[in-house]
Amino acid sequence: MRNFKLTLEFDGAEFHGWQKQPGLRTVQGVMENAAGELFGQPVAVAGCCRTDAGVHAAALVCNFLVETALPVERVYRAMEALLPDDIVVRDLREVPEGFHARHDAIARRYIYRLMGERTALSRRMCYYCKYPLDLSRMAQAAGLLLGEHDFTSFAPISLGADVSPVCTVSAASVRGDGAAILFDVTADRFLHHMVRTVVGTLIEVGRGRISPERVGEILCKRDRRAAGPTVPACGLVLMEVFYPQ
Amino acid sequence: MRNFKLTLEFDGAEFHGWQKQPGLRTVQGVMENAAGELFGQPVAVAGCCRTDAGVHAAALVCNFLVETALPVERVYRAMEALLPDDIVVRDLREVPEGFHARHDAIARRYIYRLMGERTALSRRMCYYCKYPLDLSRMAQAAGLLLGEHDFTSFAPISLGADVSPVCTVSAASVRGDGAAILFDVTADRFLHHMVRTVVGTLIEVGRGRISPERVGEILCKRDRRAAGPTVPACGLVLMEVFYPQ
Repeated sequence: MRNFKLTLEFDGAEFHGWQKQPGLRTVQGVMENAAGELFGQPVAVAGCCRTDAGVHAAALVCNFLVETALPVERVYRAMEALLPDDIVVRDLREVPEGFHARHDAIARRYIYRLMGERTALSRRMCYYCKYPLDLSRMAQAAGLLLGEHDFTSFAPISLGADVSPVCTVSAASVRGDGAAILFDVTADRFLHHMVRTVVGTLIEVGRGRISPERVGEILCKRDRRAAGPTVPACGLVLMEVFYPQ
Repeated sequence: MRNFKLTLEFDGAEFHGWQKQPGLRTVQGVMENAAGELFGQPVAVAGCCRTDAGVHAAALVCNFLVETALPVERVYRAMEALLPDDIVVRDLREVPEGFHARHDAIARRYIYRLMGERTALSRRMCYYCKYPLDLSRMAQAAGLLLGEHDFTSFAPISLGADVSPVCTVSAASVRGDGAAILFDVTADRFLHHMVRTVVGTLIEVGRGRISPERVGEILCKRDRRAAGPTVPACGLVLMEVFYPQ
């Protein structure tokens, strides 16, 4: 079997997230259909993570194993031709058979984009926050996320008993970019809705409704009710996935 | 009568251009419906120019005259609330009764965005050109557009006998911006399809199919068949409209 590793850019607006679901348009479903059509056999595509409905990706990594004699360049061109215009293959290469996009990933980086003004041209790629936000307070609160923490407070109540709520955040910052505010975070793993609930909480800090230090207390509470609201998916982009070496 | 001047940002993808047309969704139509609803009377909205179907705007200027006692801030908030999310009012102010968005405009600035790589996230705001392009050749050709010229070669055959084909270009440049190439042009007026046909011609130059100097000859020919193809509307954004003072 040959193993192909792909890096995908996609606009999540018209997808019900990554994971294949019957009757719904998902990125994994579209990828498996395209690969199945190309190779004339069922192909299972493994993704580095499950993105929620509406979340975008600049570089999601996935891989699939298949028997084929096609040169890599032909596989790349054929996949490009078979995919809809809201998925772009940014890179496709052959990797050792043991590589697995999810198991081997050691960290993921996301950016959430908030806009301080309404925008028509960028509205699909950001969330408009109508409240004035204090960037330095938000940055201070973001710093408290660094390190290993139990993120139960930032995950849905229905997280599941077999899922560990512990994540190690290696980078977390808030910065301005014109009229936008970017929350940039890297961790070994993320819980469902975690980035969006952290951003909802950082907005509470930025608005002055809670103190930056409060974010540390919210982590300690391990209670979803302690954190802020979950902001919409449209502002979230999976930026990078990291592998050893 | 009070005169309100508005600066609009809109995503042109779901509009059949600016100008009102029966049964079609247009920016002018949506604006007049919103203003009509707000003031309880028919309101005619004048735009600075007619944009084609699919063309975007970062700052299109329009104005309307209406009898009302509402404070400007109330008019602004009400218009914002009545408009769909693909139109944003960036500015609204009261101006002297004589101001007319089209008659008083002395120049318009457009940017056309070409992408050298396929993109999923920005695909609605650019045109993907699969050919390698030589930026310096394109910039040289763009320089030949400066000054007063007859742009018949870059306009539809059906321009109309009563429309002057003469435009004065005050700025025209080509520059790289990451994986994008931007054509930035300012003129007193533009003919229908003019920017998009100039870009189609600059692509011919960038690909090496015609020389930069050839653009000067194409202008002189006053024949649409001499110029390149008209590129799609999605890459075009009306950036600015200039008024005296």
